[in-house]
Amino acid sequence: MLGRLNHVALAVPDLAAATATYRDTLGAQLSAPQALPEHGVTVVFVDVGNTKIELLEPLGEASPIAAFLEKNPSGGMHHVCYEVDDILAARDHLKASGARVLGDGNPKLGAHGKPVLFLHPKDFFGTLVELEQA
Amino acid sequence: MLGRLNHVALAVPDLAAATATYRDTLGAQLSAPQALPEHGVTVVFVDVGNTKIELLEPLGEASPIAAFLEKNPSGGMHHVCYEVDDILAARDHLKASGARVLGDGNPKLGAHGKPVLFLHPKDFFGTLVELEQA
Repeated sequence: MLGRLNHVALAVPDLAAATATYRDTLGAQLSAPQALPEHGVTVVFVDVGNTKIELLEPLGEASPIAAFLEKNPSGGMHHVCYEVDDILAARDHLKASGARVLGDGNPKLGAHGKPVLFLHPKDFFGTLVELEQA
Repeated sequence: MLGRLNHVALAVPDLAAATATYRDTLGAQLSAPQALPEHGVTVVFVDVGNTKIELLEPLGEASPIAAFLEKNPSGGMHHVCYEVDDILAARDHLKASGARVLGDGNPKLGAHGKPVLFLHPKDFFGTLVELEQA
Protein backbone atom coordinates (compact mmCIF):
# COMPACT_ATOMS: atom_id res chain seq x y z
CA MET A 1 0.00 0.00 0.00
CA LEU A 2 2.65 2.51 1.07
CA GLY A 3 4.07 4.21 -2.02
CA ARG A 4 6.91 6.68 -2.43
CA LEU A 5 7.66 9.48 -0.02
CA ASN A 6 5.93 12.51 -1.50
CA HIS A 7 7.42 14.99 0.98
CA VAL A 8 8.69 15.67 4.46
CA ALA A 9 7.12 18.75 6.04
CA LEU A 10 9.10 20.99 8.37
CA ALA A 11 7.28 23.70 10.31
CA VAL A 12 9.22 26.96 10.62
CA PRO A 13 8.39 30.17 12.48
CA ASP A 14 9.89 32.43 9.80
CA LEU A 15 9.66 31.25 6.21
CA ALA A 16 11.84 34.05 4.83
CA ALA A 17 14.66 33.15 7.22
CA ALA A 18 14.28 29.42 6.51
CA THR A 19 14.25 30.04 2.77
CA ALA A 20 17.47 32.03 3.04
CA THR A 21 19.13 29.24 5.07
CA TYR A 22 18.09 26.46 2.71
CA ARG A 23 19.09 28.48 -0.35
CA ASP A 24 22.30 30.13 0.83
CA THR A 25 23.66 27.83 3.55
CA LEU A 26 22.48 24.47 2.20
CA GLY A 27 22.57 25.42 -1.50
CA ALA A 28 19.12 23.97 -2.20
CA GLN A 29 16.68 24.58 -5.07
CA LEU A 30 13.54 26.30 -3.78
CA SER A 31 10.14 27.23 -5.18
CA ALA A 32 8.61 30.66 -4.67
CA PRO A 33 6.43 30.90 -1.53
CA GLN A 34 2.79 29.90 -2.07
CA ALA A 35 0.09 31.12 0.29
CA LEU A 36 -2.52 28.40 0.82
CA PRO A 37 -5.17 30.12 2.93
CA GLU A 38 -7.50 27.10 2.75
CA HIS A 39 -4.76 25.05 4.47
CA GLY A 40 -3.64 27.78 6.88
CA VAL A 41 -0.03 27.72 5.70
CA THR A 42 2.41 29.39 3.38
CA VAL A 43 4.67 26.81 1.78
CA VAL A 44 8.05 26.73 0.04
CA PHE A 45 9.07 23.50 -1.70
CA VAL A 46 12.70 22.39 -1.56
CA ASP A 47 13.46 20.13 -4.51
CA VAL A 48 16.05 17.54 -3.45
CA GLY A 49 15.74 15.46 -6.62
CA ASN A 50 14.08 12.28 -5.37
CA THR A 51 11.44 13.94 -3.17
CA LYS A 52 10.48 17.32 -1.70
CA ILE A 53 10.91 19.08 1.59
CA GLU A 54 8.01 21.37 2.44
CA LEU A 55 8.79 24.37 4.60
CA LEU A 56 5.55 25.44 6.28
CA GLU A 57 4.81 28.76 7.98
CA PRO A 58 1.46 29.45 9.67
CA LEU A 59 -1.02 31.60 7.73
CA GLY A 60 -4.11 33.11 9.34
CA GLU A 61 -5.73 32.66 12.72
CA ALA A 62 -6.53 28.94 12.65
CA SER A 63 -3.38 27.46 11.16
CA PRO A 64 -3.07 23.69 11.71
CA ILE A 65 0.62 24.17 12.57
CA ALA A 66 0.15 26.97 15.14
CA ALA A 67 -0.08 24.61 18.11
CA PHE A 68 3.00 22.70 16.95
CA LEU A 69 5.01 25.93 16.78
CA GLU A 70 3.79 26.95 20.23
CA LYS A 71 5.30 23.71 21.55
CA ASN A 72 8.35 23.97 19.27
CA PRO A 73 9.02 27.69 18.86
CA SER A 74 12.17 27.16 16.79
CA GLY A 75 10.29 24.86 14.38
CA GLY A 76 10.70 21.16 13.77
CA MET A 77 9.80 18.09 11.75
CA HIS A 78 6.02 18.10 11.34
CA HIS A 79 4.89 15.18 9.17
CA VAL A 80 5.78 12.75 6.40
CA CYS A 81 3.56 12.20 3.35
CA TYR A 82 3.42 8.92 1.47
CA GLU A 83 1.71 8.32 -1.85
CA VAL A 84 -0.98 5.68 -2.23
CA ASP A 85 -2.76 4.52 -5.38
CA ASP A 86 -6.26 4.48 -3.92
CA ILE A 87 -6.84 6.65 -0.88
CA LEU A 88 -10.28 5.25 -0.06
CA ALA A 89 -9.02 1.66 -0.16
CA ALA A 90 -6.05 2.72 1.99
CA ARG A 91 -8.35 4.44 4.48
CA ASP A 92 -10.64 1.45 4.76
CA HIS A 93 -7.69 -0.92 5.26
CA LEU A 94 -6.21 1.36 7.92
CA LYS A 95 -9.47 1.75 9.80
CA ALA A 96 -9.97 -2.02 9.73
CA SER A 97 -6.46 -2.34 11.22
CA GLY A 98 -7.45 -0.03 14.08
CA ALA A 99 -5.59 3.10 12.91
CA ARG A 100 -7.33 6.42 13.46
CA VAL A 101 -7.92 8.77 10.54
CA LEU A 102 -8.00 12.44 11.59
CA GLY A 103 -10.94 14.74 10.92
CA ASP A 104 -14.17 13.29 9.57
CA GLY A 105 -12.36 10.45 7.82
CA ASN A 106 -12.98 11.81 4.33
CA PRO A 107 -10.10 12.88 2.09
CA LYS A 108 -9.60 16.60 1.55
CA LEU A 109 -7.77 18.27 -1.32
CA GLY A 110 -4.15 18.80 -0.24
CA ALA A 111 -1.55 21.39 -1.18
CA HIS A 112 -1.03 19.65 -4.54
CA GLY A 113 -4.75 19.54 -5.37
CA LYS A 114 -4.92 15.79 -4.74
CA PRO A 115 -6.94 13.90 -2.09
CA VAL A 116 -5.13 13.58 1.26
CA LEU A 117 -5.76 12.10 4.70
CA PHE A 118 -3.87 12.40 7.97
CA LEU A 119 -3.38 9.49 10.39
CA HIS A 120 -3.17 9.84 14.16
CA PRO A 121 0.48 10.07 15.31
CA LYS A 122 -0.27 7.91 18.35
CA ASP A 123 -0.94 4.99 16.01
CA PHE A 124 2.41 5.50 14.21
CA PHE A 125 4.90 5.92 17.06
CA GLY A 126 4.66 9.67 17.36
CA THR A 127 4.92 10.46 13.65
CA LEU A 128 2.10 12.34 11.93
CA VAL A 129 1.49 10.51 8.63
CA GLU A 130 -0.20 12.05 5.60
CA LEU A 131 -1.38 9.90 2.69
CA GLU A 132 -1.83 11.43 -0.75
CA GLN A 133 -3.47 9.76 -3.72
CA ALA A 134 -0.75 9.98 -6.37
CA MET B 1 25.29 21.33 -2.35
CA LEU B 2 22.20 19.61 -0.96
CA GLY B 3 21.66 16.32 -2.81
CA ARG B 4 18.85 13.80 -2.62
CA LEU B 5 17.11 12.76 0.58
CA ASN B 6 18.90 9.61 1.70
CA HIS B 7 16.49 8.85 4.53
CA VAL B 8 14.14 10.12 7.19
CA ALA B 9 14.85 8.63 10.63
CA LEU B 10 12.02 7.90 13.05
CA ALA B 11 12.87 6.96 16.63
CA VAL B 12 10.62 4.27 18.10
CA PRO B 13 10.53 2.76 21.58
CA ASP B 14 9.71 -0.76 20.35
CA LEU B 15 11.15 -1.78 17.00
CA ALA B 16 9.23 -5.07 16.84
CA ALA B 17 5.93 -3.26 17.29
CA ALA B 18 6.88 -0.56 14.77
CA THR B 19 8.00 -3.18 12.27
CA ALA B 20 4.67 -4.97 12.58
CA THR B 21 2.75 -1.71 12.06
CA TYR B 22 4.74 -0.65 9.00
CA ARG B 23 4.52 -4.14 7.48
CA ASP B 24 0.97 -5.13 8.33
CA THR B 25 -0.92 -1.85 8.70
CA LEU B 26 0.93 0.25 6.13
CA GLY B 27 1.89 -2.61 3.81
CA ALA B 28 5.52 -1.47 3.50
CA GLN B 29 8.66 -3.36 2.42
CA LEU B 30 11.07 -3.73 5.35
CA SER B 31 14.61 -4.94 5.87
CA ALA B 32 15.56 -7.32 8.66
CA PRO B 33 16.63 -5.54 11.88
CA GLN B 34 20.34 -4.65 12.01
CA ALA B 35 22.05 -4.06 15.35
CA LEU B 36 24.62 -1.26 15.03
CA PRO B 37 26.31 -1.22 18.44
CA GLU B 38 28.86 1.38 17.34
CA HIS B 39 25.94 3.76 16.64
CA GLY B 40 23.86 2.76 19.66
CA VAL B 41 20.83 1.79 17.60
CA THR B 42 19.07 -1.13 16.02
CA VAL B 43 17.67 -0.14 12.65
CA VAL B 44 15.04 -1.38 10.22
CA PHE B 45 14.92 0.19 6.76
CA VAL B 46 11.56 0.82 5.13
CA ASP B 47 11.96 0.94 1.35
CA VAL B 48 9.45 3.40 -0.10
CA GLY B 49 10.92 3.36 -3.60
CA ASN B 50 12.43 6.82 -3.92
CA THR B 51 14.08 6.94 -0.48
CA LYS B 52 14.20 5.10 2.84
CA ILE B 53 12.60 5.48 6.22
CA GLU B 54 14.86 4.35 9.06
CA LEU B 55 13.14 3.04 12.17
CA LEU B 56 15.58 3.43 15.07
CA GLU B 57 15.43 1.73 18.46
CA PRO B 58 18.02 2.45 21.19
CA LEU B 59 20.75 -0.15 21.65
CA GLY B 60 23.02 -0.17 24.69
CA GLU B 61 23.54 2.25 27.54
CA ALA B 62 24.69 5.35 25.64
CA SER B 63 22.32 5.41 22.69
CA PRO B 64 22.22 8.79 20.91
CA ILE B 65 18.42 8.50 20.68
CA ALA B 66 17.80 7.70 24.37
CA ALA B 67 17.33 11.34 25.40
CA PHE B 68 14.97 11.93 22.47
CA LEU B 69 12.80 8.99 23.55
CA GLU B 70 12.79 10.24 27.14
CA LYS B 71 11.28 13.48 25.86
CA ASN B 72 9.07 11.68 23.32
CA PRO B 73 8.19 8.33 24.89
CA SER B 74 5.91 7.29 22.02
CA GLY B 75 8.66 8.01 19.49
CA GLY B 76 8.82 10.65 16.78
CA MET B 77 10.61 12.12 13.80
CA HIS B 78 14.31 12.26 14.67
CA HIS B 79 16.34 13.55 11.70
CA VAL B 80 16.59 13.89 7.92
CA CYS B 81 19.68 12.84 5.97
CA TYR B 82 20.72 14.48 2.72
CA GLU B 83 23.42 13.28 0.36
CA VAL B 84 26.34 15.51 -0.59
CA ASP B 85 29.11 14.87 -3.11
CA ASP B 86 31.97 16.07 -0.91
CA ILE B 87 31.37 16.07 2.82
CA LEU B 88 34.50 18.01 3.73
CA ALA B 89 33.70 20.77 1.23
CA ALA B 90 30.12 20.81 2.55
CA ARG B 91 31.35 21.03 6.15
CA ASP B 92 33.73 23.88 5.38
CA HIS B 93 31.02 25.82 3.52
CA LEU B 94 28.56 25.27 6.39
CA LYS B 95 31.04 26.34 9.05
CA ALA B 96 31.91 29.45 7.04
CA SER B 97 28.16 30.19 6.91
CA GLY B 98 27.97 30.01 10.70
CA ALA B 99 26.29 26.60 11.01
CA ARG B 100 27.43 24.35 13.84
CA VAL B 101 28.64 20.84 13.10
CA LEU B 102 28.03 18.43 15.99
CA GLY B 103 30.81 16.45 17.68
CA ASP B 104 34.41 17.19 16.83
CA GLY B 105 33.54 18.37 13.32
CA ASN B 106 35.07 15.36 11.60
CA PRO B 107 32.93 12.92 9.61
CA LYS B 108 32.25 9.52 11.12
CA LEU B 109 31.24 6.36 9.30
CA GLY B 110 27.45 6.18 9.32
CA ALA B 111 25.02 3.27 9.26
CA HIS B 112 25.74 2.74 5.54
CA GLY B 113 29.52 2.74 6.00
CA LYS B 114 29.86 6.18 4.41
CA PRO B 115 31.11 9.42 6.01
CA VAL B 116 28.41 11.39 7.82
CA LEU B 117 28.08 14.60 9.83
CA PHE B 118 25.24 16.01 11.92
CA LEU B 119 24.33 19.71 11.99
CA HIS B 120 22.94 21.52 15.00
CA PRO B 121 19.12 21.63 14.89
CA LYS B 122 19.09 25.18 16.24
CA ASP B 123 20.74 26.32 13.00
CA PHE B 124 18.07 24.57 10.89
CA PHE B 125 14.79 25.59 12.53
CA GLY B 126 14.56 22.69 14.96
CA THR B 127 15.39 19.92 12.48
CA LEU B 128 18.41 17.70 13.08
CA VAL B 129 20.17 17.40 9.71
CA GLU B 130 22.56 14.60 8.76
CA LEU B 131 24.78 14.85 5.70
CA GLU B 132 26.12 11.70 4.06
CA GLN B 133 28.76 11.57 1.34
CA ALA B 134 26.98 9.64 -1.40
